[in-house]
Amino acid sequence: MNEIIELLLNHRSIRKFEDKPLSKEQIEQIVRAAQAASTSSFVQAYSIIGISDPEKKRELAALAGNQAYVEHNGYFYVFCTDLNRHSIAADMAGKDLGESLDFMEKFMVAVIDAALAAQNAAIAAESMGLGICYIGGIRNEIEKVSDLLKLPDRVIPLFGMAVGYPAHESALKPRLPLEAVFHENEYEDKEEQLKEYDETISAYYNERTKGKRTDRWSEQITAMLTGKQREHMKDFVNAKGYAKK
Amino acid sequence: MNEIIELLLNHRSIRKFEDKPLSKEQIEQIVRAAQAASTSSFVQAYSIIGISDPEKKRELAALAGNQAYVEHNGYFYVFCTDLNRHSIAADMAGKDLGESLDFMEKFMVAVIDAALAAQNAAIAAESMGLGICYIGGIRNEIEKVSDLLKLPDRVIPLFGMAVGYPAHESALKPRLPLEAVFHENEYEDKEEQLKEYDETISAYYNERTKGKRTDRWSEQITAMLTGKQREHMKDFVNAKGYAKK
Repeated sequence: MNEIIELLLNHRSIRKFEDKPLSKEQIEQIVRAAQAASTSSFVQAYSIIGISDPEKKRELAALAGNQAYVEHNGYFYVFCTDLNRHSIAADMAGKDLGESLDFMEKFMVAVIDAALAAQNAAIAAESMGLGICYIGGIRNEIEKVSDLLKLPDRVIPLFGMAVGYPAHESALKPRLPLEAVFHENEYEDKEEQLKEYDETISAYYNERTKGKRTDRWSEQITAMLTGKQREHMKDFVNAKGYAKK
Repeated sequence: MNEIIELLLNHRSIRKFEDKPLSKEQIEQIVRAAQAASTSSFVQAYSIIGISDPEKKRELAALAGNQAYVEHNGYFYVFCTDLNRHSIAADMAGKDLGESLDFMEKFMVAVIDAALAAQNAAIAAESMGLGICYIGGIRNEIEKVSDLLKLPDRVIPLFGMAVGYPAHESALKPRLPLEAVFHENEYEDKEEQLKEYDETISAYYNERTKGKRTDRWSEQITAMLTGKQREHMKDFVNAKGYAKK
């Protein structure tokens, strides 16, 4: 196994950071790495908002559900879909995009582009010895976050990323077995593998909590999925000009 | 700059591969790296279909617009959103998910999860000296691809990834300037940076084609965005049980 795969396999989310800001060079190096990811037909349909203003970080932390590590970290990025740039490009080219940006396909392209860029950013940060945590919580109050960052139409804040010098060690929680997510040639029945994973996760919690928790993955994930629905998302996405057709 | 960031910055899509298959160990190592990416609340909402059957690769290549490298490569993966797994998990937990999987939020979670996993796979492959190319073309005929891979409800083929030993060198096409995608504290007007980029891209083509091509990014991207609309996407996504609410 090479050093890079070792880094990838060793990933864990970091939720407590030292009080030590990233340097401008680090901040930009991470953005450059993000930009180097693949992008659908060279469309580069994302923007990255870097939050250096402490007051803005405080507000974001409050909107994301009062997670301290949104405010206290080495730097905070917000990854956004961005097809606004392409409206401007069309104006520059003297062309009319018509309804083309309204299609679900374009929304998917922008979400995928933003996510590929973000994962490169995460790996770049970890390669420098920094820790990261994705913050989906900014979607709890996505409209307020969007207003706070003054995002125009066709720019949606997808998730944040807290980056910094790790101030705690966190355990590697076992992922689904490879056989549960990997299918050969066609989609296969994986119920057996999910049952096996339920036992793995239950044993993991049991050991870490000395018997206080023994919940299975299927229970945990069912509770999670019926929890934070963020029912406003479709209206917000459509109002921003995405996925209308 | 460390070796890992160097690898990230050096990424380019590879569209011609040697006739040399990946080993089982390589195939699985890449999947394990994909699995190690962050996942929203541990939901792991994706599946990876590995295509080893040559006939299936031929069919996929035809459906993706006759790109030879979909058929001829070291291995071919299809990355899918997967919330079907979570219906099964709910049954295992004896719980009812109600309409919770119908929400746009859950679709976004699944698309992001699949994309983060895929980018880890891409980096793992490149770290082994392999090349990769994302294949959005499988969305041209997404319903037929879905049928070919026997994907159930709530499983959508997002994109393919051709992996293999590179049989050509490809140039690094300049990305948008950092200042065009990176905003500080709030969304900023980037028209100047886009104009600058137009000149960069025009000069790039001019040099590579000895003056035969001088198109600007804004022209190129406008043509692209009004081109492959894949207008069937919203109906397909909804029919698969996603983003209905």
